[in-house]
Amino acid sequence: MNDQFMQAAIDEAIIGRDEGGIPIGSVLVIDGQIVGRGHNRRVQKGSSVLHAEMDALENAGRLTAAQYGRATLYSTLSPCDMCSGAALLYQIPTIIVGENKTFQGPEKYVRSRGVSLTVLDNETCVELMNAFIAKHPELWNEDIGV
Amino acid sequence: MNDQFMQAAIDEAIIGRDEGGIPIGSVLVIDGQIVGRGHNRRVQKGSSVLHAEMDALENAGRLTAAQYGRATLYSTLSPCDMCSGAALLYQIPTIIVGENKTFQGPEKYVRSRGVSLTVLDNETCVELMNAFIAKHPELWNEDIGV
Repeated sequence: MNDQFMQAAIDEAIIGRDEGGIPIGSVLVIDGQIVGRGHNRRVQKGSSVLHAEMDALENAGRLTAAQYGRATLYSTLSPCDMCSGAALLYQIPTIIVGENKTFQGPEKYVRSRGVSLTVLDNETCVELMNAFIAKHPELWNEDIGV
Repeated sequence: MNDQFMQAAIDEAIIGRDEGGIPIGSVLVIDGQIVGRGHNRRVQKGSSVLHAEMDALENAGRLTAAQYGRATLYSTLSPCDMCSGAALLYQIPTIIVGENKTFQGPEKYVRSRGVSLTVLDNETCVELMNAFIAKHPELWNEDIGV
């Protein structure tokens, strides 16, 4: 797997892990450029809304519909209901997911709304999550609302 | 209409309007108490993710699944895909909506996921949005991704 953008998302996940946070990273790409990058901030900021994808979207700032319409959202983990909803709100046409073995969001629904969603089965992404969940199951459950 | 919590959401919408922002407000209520309140922050913070409901959820801080399971989310406007998704993520069982005439989110899908969603047809909520949309159609379109 040599996609530079998924690697950037993994780099973000590792930054989050090294901050003591939940190791999920994301980047938003438009016209071959990263315009926003982020990682889960639940621990670092006490945030309930800054999942990695939300953090990347927030850091990208206010964009036009035309910009979102050319965007691809990369995430190391299958986007949850909230993050999938954000992609649907802004009509982001393409989502590339590192893995969906440790958690799976509403992928079928997202595809039914016309989004191209691809899962890479990236082993680094799986390992990051498995190591975290084994250490901090309570934090992980909190992050996915269970 | 004399629901104190919808009135609190309307108060938040008016704060947002008076800040020059998009007049949508929200409160999260648990056990008869407001635990988080917020309003749309696109203009005020340059935020693409802090819709009113997201702002209320963020301001409520990190909660447990048991707390979300007793929560009601009030919003002056029908929640968009992102905000609906946040409610689904945290399995908030009840959503009370001021109005859905000026914008309608994925209400049918939200109900299909087991959420009780009630629309009040509150005229103050409609008037706040109509006045804003007439003055700033471009801002409103940006906020709903069109």
